[in-house]
Amino acid sequence: MFYNKFAKFVAVLCCVCFQETCTEEYKPNWASLDARPLPTWYDKSKIGVFIHWGVFSVPSFGDGFLGEWFWQFWKGQPRPVAVEFMKKNYPPNFQYADFAPMFTAELYDPNHWADVLKASGAKYVVLTSKHHEGYTNWPSINSWNWNSMDVGPNRDLVGDLAKAIRNRTSIRFGLYHSLYEWFNPLYLKDKKNMYTTQDFVRTKTMPELYDIVRRYKPEVIFSDGQWEADSSYWNSTHFLAWLYNSSPVKQTIVTNDRWGKDTLCKHGGYLTCRDHYNPGVLQKRKFENAMTIDKGSWGFRRNAELADYITIQDLLQELVTTISCGGNLLINIGPTKSGTIAPIYEERLRQMGQWLQMNGEAVYGSKPWKYQNDTTNPHVWYTAKQGGDVVYAFLFQWSQSVTLRSPLASSSSATVDLLGGKPSLVWMPLKEKGVKIEIPAWSNAKWVMVLRLTGFAG
Amino acid sequence: MFYNKFAKFVAVLCCVCFQETCTEEYKPNWASLDARPLPTWYDKSKIGVFIHWGVFSVPSFGDGFLGEWFWQFWKGQPRPVAVEFMKKNYPPNFQYADFAPMFTAELYDPNHWADVLKASGAKYVVLTSKHHEGYTNWPSINSWNWNSMDVGPNRDLVGDLAKAIRNRTSIRFGLYHSLYEWFNPLYLKDKKNMYTTQDFVRTKTMPELYDIVRRYKPEVIFSDGQWEADSSYWNSTHFLAWLYNSSPVKQTIVTNDRWGKDTLCKHGGYLTCRDHYNPGVLQKRKFENAMTIDKGSWGFRRNAELADYITIQDLLQELVTTISCGGNLLINIGPTKSGTIAPIYEERLRQMGQWLQMNGEAVYGSKPWKYQNDTTNPHVWYTAKQGGDVVYAFLFQWSQSVTLRSPLASSSSATVDLLGGKPSLVWMPLKEKGVKIEIPAWSNAKWVMVLRLTGFAG
Amino acid sequence: MFYNKFAKFVAVLCCVCFQETCTEEYKPNWASLDARPLPTWYDKSKIGVFIHWGVFSVPSFGDGFLGEWFWQFWKGQPRPVAVEFMKKNYPPNFQYADFAPMFTAELYDPNHWADVLKASGAKYVVLTSKHHEGYTNWPSINSWNWNSMDVGPNRDLVGDLAKAIRNRTSIRFGLYHSLYEWFNPLYLKDKKNMYTTQDFVRTKTMPELYDIVRRYKPEVIFSDGQWEADSSYWNSTHFLAWLYNSSPVKQTIVTNDRWGKDTLCKHGGYLTCRDHYNPGVLQKRKFENAMTIDKGSWGFRRNAELADYITIQDLLQELVTTISCGGNLLINIGPTKSGTIAPIYEERLRQMGQWLQMNGEAVYGSKPWKYQNDTTNPHVWYTAKQGGDVVYAFLFQWSQSVTLRSPLASSSSATVDLLGGKPSLVWMPLKEKGVKIEIPAWSNAKWVMVLRLTGFAG
Amino acid sequence: MFYNKFAKFVAVLCCVCFQETCTEEYKPNWASLDARPLPTWYDKSKIGVFIHWGVFSVPSFGDGFLGEWFWQFWKGQPRPVAVEFMKKNYPPNFQYADFAPMFTAELYDPNHWADVLKASGAKYVVLTSKHHEGYTNWPSINSWNWNSMDVGPNRDLVGDLAKAIRNRTSIRFGLYHSLYEWFNPLYLKDKKNMYTTQDFVRTKTMPELYDIVRRYKPEVIFSDGQWEADSSYWNSTHFLAWLYNSSPVKQTIVTNDRWGKDTLCKHGGYLTCRDHYNPGVLQKRKFENAMTIDKGSWGFRRNAELADYITIQDLLQELVTTISCGGNLLINIGPTKSGTIAPIYEERLRQMGQWLQMNGEAVYGSKPWKYQNDTTNPHVWYTAKQGGDVVYAFLFQWSQSVTLRSPLASSSSATVDLLGGKPSLVWMPLKEKGVKIEIPAWSNAKWVMVLRLTGFAG
Repeated sequence: MFYNKFAKFVAVLCCVCFQETCTEEYKPNWASLDARPLPTWYDKSKIGVFIHWGVFSVPSFGDGFLGEWFWQFWKGQPRPVAVEFMKKNYPPNFQYADFAPMFTAELYDPNHWADVLKASGAKYVVLTSKHHEGYTNWPSINSWNWNSMDVGPNRDLVGDLAKAIRNRTSIRFGLYHSLYEWFNPLYLKDKKNMYTTQDFVRTKTMPELYDIVRRYKPEVIFSDGQWEADSSYWNSTHFLAWLYNSSPVKQTIVTNDRWGKDTLCKHGGYLTCRDHYNPGVLQKRKFENAMTIDKGSWGFRRNAELADYITIQDLLQELVTTISCGGNLLINIGPTKSGTIAPIYEERLRQMGQWLQMNGEAVYGSKPWKYQNDTTNPHVWYTAKQGGDVVYAFLFQWSQSVTLRSPLASSSSATVDLLGGKPSLVWMPLKEKGVKIEIPAWSNAKWVMVLRLTGFAG
Repeated sequence: MFYNKFAKFVAVLCCVCFQETCTEEYKPNWASLDARPLPTWYDKSKIGVFIHWGVFSVPSFGDGFLGEWFWQFWKGQPRPVAVEFMKKNYPPNFQYADFAPMFTAELYDPNHWADVLKASGAKYVVLTSKHHEGYTNWPSINSWNWNSMDVGPNRDLVGDLAKAIRNRTSIRFGLYHSLYEWFNPLYLKDKKNMYTTQDFVRTKTMPELYDIVRRYKPEVIFSDGQWEADSSYWNSTHFLAWLYNSSPVKQTIVTNDRWGKDTLCKHGGYLTCRDHYNPGVLQKRKFENAMTIDKGSWGFRRNAELADYITIQDLLQELVTTISCGGNLLINIGPTKSGTIAPIYEERLRQMGQWLQMNGEAVYGSKPWKYQNDTTNPHVWYTAKQGGDVVYAFLFQWSQSVTLRSPLASSSSATVDLLGGKPSLVWMPLKEKGVKIEIPAWSNAKWVMVLRLTGFAG
Repeated sequence: MFYNKFAKFVAVLCCVCFQETCTEEYKPNWASLDARPLPTWYDKSKIGVFIHWGVFSVPSFGDGFLGEWFWQFWKGQPRPVAVEFMKKNYPPNFQYADFAPMFTAELYDPNHWADVLKASGAKYVVLTSKHHEGYTNWPSINSWNWNSMDVGPNRDLVGDLAKAIRNRTSIRFGLYHSLYEWFNPLYLKDKKNMYTTQDFVRTKTMPELYDIVRRYKPEVIFSDGQWEADSSYWNSTHFLAWLYNSSPVKQTIVTNDRWGKDTLCKHGGYLTCRDHYNPGVLQKRKFENAMTIDKGSWGFRRNAELADYITIQDLLQELVTTISCGGNLLINIGPTKSGTIAPIYEERLRQMGQWLQMNGEAVYGSKPWKYQNDTTNPHVWYTAKQGGDVVYAFLFQWSQSVTLRSPLASSSSATVDLLGGKPSLVWMPLKEKGVKIEIPAWSNAKWVMVLRLTGFAG
Repeated sequence: MFYNKFAKFVAVLCCVCFQETCTEEYKPNWASLDARPLPTWYDKSKIGVFIHWGVFSVPSFGDGFLGEWFWQFWKGQPRPVAVEFMKKNYPPNFQYADFAPMFTAELYDPNHWADVLKASGAKYVVLTSKHHEGYTNWPSINSWNWNSMDVGPNRDLVGDLAKAIRNRTSIRFGLYHSLYEWFNPLYLKDKKNMYTTQDFVRTKTMPELYDIVRRYKPEVIFSDGQWEADSSYWNSTHFLAWLYNSSPVKQTIVTNDRWGKDTLCKHGGYLTCRDHYNPGVLQKRKFENAMTIDKGSWGFRRNAELADYITIQDLLQELVTTISCGGNLLINIGPTKSGTIAPIYEERLRQMGQWLQMNGEAVYGSKPWKYQNDTTNPHVWYTAKQGGDVVYAFLFQWSQSVTLRSPLASSSSATVDLLGGKPSLVWMPLKEKGVKIEIPAWSNAKWVMVLRLTGFAG
């Protein structure tokens, strides 16, 4: 009898403790959380821009390693090139925190950023609110003197971008957040304690995560830094239950799958599985391919050369292959410590925007088709119109004619049009299977050509 | 029945939580804590050196205000002269935390500090472990990137001094600790919540206070920054109970009275009542007069001129009047951001040491006498030998002879000696009351002359 | 008699003074100097890369004004935007010279620069040895503590590039040199003296000019900063006489026309007339069109956006129109204070190189043709082969066919080929005048299409 | 005949060239220059304050070597301790010129300096206008971007002190000037040329020396840095001829003997012979003992400890022994890079001023006596009143009586007085020779006691 009573007592106690979730739909367990449908805006968006910015933008150096991981490769898992870089250019007792006052951001113009993002055709943006270095790009009360208001920019970097994005565009605003912090001594203590203590979680990472949701009402949380500990350590399920049930963004918030070493590619919202995740085959669950224009880094690297930056062709192919398989593409740029977006980044974004101007129809409203990659032509990928009798073929190469094996004309009234170009291209069904299409000689198609096939089945 | 069991359950739980105090002598209430006798070493020591060092040593500027309060007078309660100083010398968006990398301490030689302290004759030293700015002079895990290891000196300033002091001297090592931090956002939140929350106390100030006791085993805790909230907010009584019952320094630790706005001059160890507390009359309880060689600041001020520094005469008079009334004197110096003790400070300390060399007998082993200040001669103060028939008269001025009204010769075999000089001075009892003493013309007495009166009563 | 003897004495004296020129070909007057033929390598080169680098690369800011003129627009002829920039980001008493230690160049890799320059197809490079700020990019003994060895990079920037260029490429190495220095007090004194004194010329600008010739043996001297004073003040003719007669580069050196306010577009080597000089009509004398990829600045501007950078189309059109009229194109890039070439610059240079790979034949060996711009088609420009029966037509736009009015087929065996593409295009003479050419639908032509017309006359 | 005419022509020419000296008294040769009488104010002044301030005040470090020689001991003649200091605290490619922006002088208050100097009792002051580092403390047009206006303080340090001194005191203003500059490349070139060239002299050191005389009208030139070359290289005699004949300070200017390696202790104005020159015996020519309060450095050293500073006793003994032998004492202080005079310096100066208040009569108006040091008592030194029957005895130690062997009472009406104390001390002639004087027991004498002997002969 006692046990019953005590159990009830505990239950009441819990309901007090987690009052907000008591009557709510989602429970803090993965079964319940995973059952939440992904808000539909996300799949329709297809393209987001990722922004990595922080104190790492000061050394802004990576040579064979990611620039935003500079601290780790200098002090945590030292690499000779990073250690040498510091030796050569700084006094011996210079510490990472000494970089912070040099994070000046004096040329940061969030309105210009918003305009560039808008021109890119992206539908959402994900800014690092805090990376593994633990420095917060907003005035976090849990990160005193290690945030962008107290040291360095003297400004709410996150808030100012949120405002500009919302004032000037219809882009959705999202935030990246690293659960862990390499060198936070509270984290290191919890880790040393085999994660039996949660001092770090309770006083730093979770309060801050709640804080950014309440302050900035992001519609994406790109969680990261989860891999060293279980989601039970991180208290992730409680956060997500709150996020889905009670937070100001409960209706539209989208999250990823990085909530503990037990969750990647398994639990949460959409899947990321790994960085640069581009599986090449149709996925059952919505995923996101996070990739970066500087192929060697997410944070800006002063030492990156042209060859380190992805070409517009490759970027568009990455986009097409990703959405063909059901993913979104999250394209990363790394602003400078001055607060500028280097022109090479702006160029890639504007080139993509220019291409989407003509070909967006095949992207934004699309869904994966029956086939992703053409059966025989490796340079052709497909999407289909949501709720329509239309297939889009993306040609990575083209000449006078192109042969597709996957689409089958449903009738002779089927049509093929060139997006941004000529309607009603000449085509003919192939004997065995597929269709041969004549490509017009003089078109505006650039980088990737898109054909609209109406009345074709797979 | 259930309730009994539950009560027991709770009791066990509590005993687990506060295990250390379960069987211990001191309870976390003032009645119990105040009952603890002050360790005897403290009264015998008479003289300590106070050291104010921190990020404030970088601006190192105070003009009509205390240098170590620079942040507060720039941002909290702005004074034109501080605001102007920043405007004139720093970029507009410069923040206080930007000073930290300039706190270089590259010339910090704790061995030299120890030698200077030893030469001063002081018996204990009290270093700021953390002032109101919240920056810790040791690698606190609760003050990440706002401590002397992570930013600035890249060194455990506290630990290095503790080691040097203990290796080279028999001086006792103590620490100053500010309970509050002007601009810590967690503190400000608690304050805004009318101190109904204790986030700051639980995650910053108390963990750190326990930490420095465990790490450095100080024998003095000079608590400060208590005045805005009650000791119940600060959890002071629990800390003190632990300190007295279970800490590694429970036998010898001495604390002051700054544990909440309800405690000053009332509860705790010795009383400080206010800075520069020199009451001039005998006190019932042991007190400490904390004063500073730079009359206008505790932290080093680059702009201090000679006139701002106390003369050795005034310093010794401060010492004498303080111990005459039952106090200890805590004499402050402010090292530079480079880690040096400015020679003017070293000079005062060495002058005091030189004087104590000759006159220490009247200081260290002494206790207040029946009279503190001579009944009629304002330039004469007294102490008495602990457990002996001896009175010491300190003369702030002297000429061929001096007339004292307070001491009465018990017999004609009473003697008067000049410390560091001639034995058996000529003296004669006065008609009414007191004694007239002939002062030898050629003596080594300097600054303050000390006479040893044997066989005199009050 | 005396006067004769004295005159002879003076003459001997002069011959001693200017011994080097006594027996030499070129005299220090414009008639003599202008008679020197321009070394032939220069005309054949057609393309050079200009590099603006200096202390101005530290503020690296221009908004409505040239970035490398920052000092002048902050202090000399103050513009609100520059003044405001300094107020916002630097302490009030910050001076321009305080920027110098921040000119770090720690990522300067002259080998990489050389490789990029080589890939661009340029045949010569012109680096600022010293701009109007007076700071020398080499260890000038006449510019103590205001040169790249003594303050900032701690490196011979000029020498290191010269070495890399010569080791890795056959590009010719040239130097830009500003005669005047905005704020050099010796210059200002001479100026105040109405140029009756030459202290500045004798102790700074001329010794340095001789020095860089002797040290680095440049094959181009791009002189500048001449406009405030006559060439007689600058001693230019003496320098040029020495340069042509006795210097180590007397055979191959090429200079421009900026040697005094009396010389621009008139005396010296090739003409520059003004920046961005692209006259559009055939010139009698060889000229150089110095222009810059960042349309608003020669020095790197952190605040430049993509729209500020010239497109590859515009760059190639600038090249074509310039060489059509007999000029060379000097294309400017501005490296960063870190020593890197921003990828957007590298991209333009490599794009040009890629185009030249296919079309270089129409550029390097060419000379202006009878017509520069087609008589009726404004999008077509011409060059001709040196010593050959070939005309090159550059098409800035093209479609299925193109009509040219200027070329007349000499015979029916005349041919038209597409550079990098199909030989023997179909063409037909027009009734009145000119020729109509069929453009192949599927070619590799990009940006500017080049046709080779053999057997055509104008 | 020709030769006659030509000679005349040359003579006229010379007279044009050196017009100022044509009709003047002093010729540019040592015989003529040495014949100039030293202006009388100098000998009467007895005490000057020397001030060493410059970029060396930034590293402000010397350990076994002079702080103002830091550059030389780091780079010129490297000492391990200096090299190590740089390695430990600065990036590897940090150069000396990089220190200049840190020479902030933001707390420089020349009025306060003037007040301290006045209080010291000194009658002239000598400020380093430029030390061997070549950096000028005034806006020299021959030292662009290497002067206190262009980089660092952004202020005319020399001019501001001159003004304050003249506005608030009657102290005479003088300037130190180093002829040579360790690392000036023009100097190094001249040196390499065995001093057959004078580029450095003509464009830097001499123009600047003339400049400071014209601008600031100093009454002392303390020349230095002469030792590597003859005065003929330095053009010293021409400068001095101009200084004595035509300069604005020709009447009152005083110079020293450091004008070439051939002049030290031989030619010029007063002799300095070497630093800390205190010969101990009467000198035929006026000399100056330049010494420094920090015994190990002229420039401020952050690492100097109390023991490095001369005591007031030693300072006064240095003064007394110096003037006894006919010298002046030039007492050095080293201000900080912030522009402050460290209190320990201020203390020594004010202590001296306090002593002079009482004993100045024996100093300022004095001349050497027949005897300098007492014949038998090594602790007694003498001066005599100019134009009077008075001898001053300076006692470095004293007790009830003192025995002097050198003074002989002329008559029994001779008197002995204690300066600042009792008149008519008891004295008695000694049998053999000399006099015994009774010292009053209770006097204000401090540090050095001075007796006025009237009616005594040597």
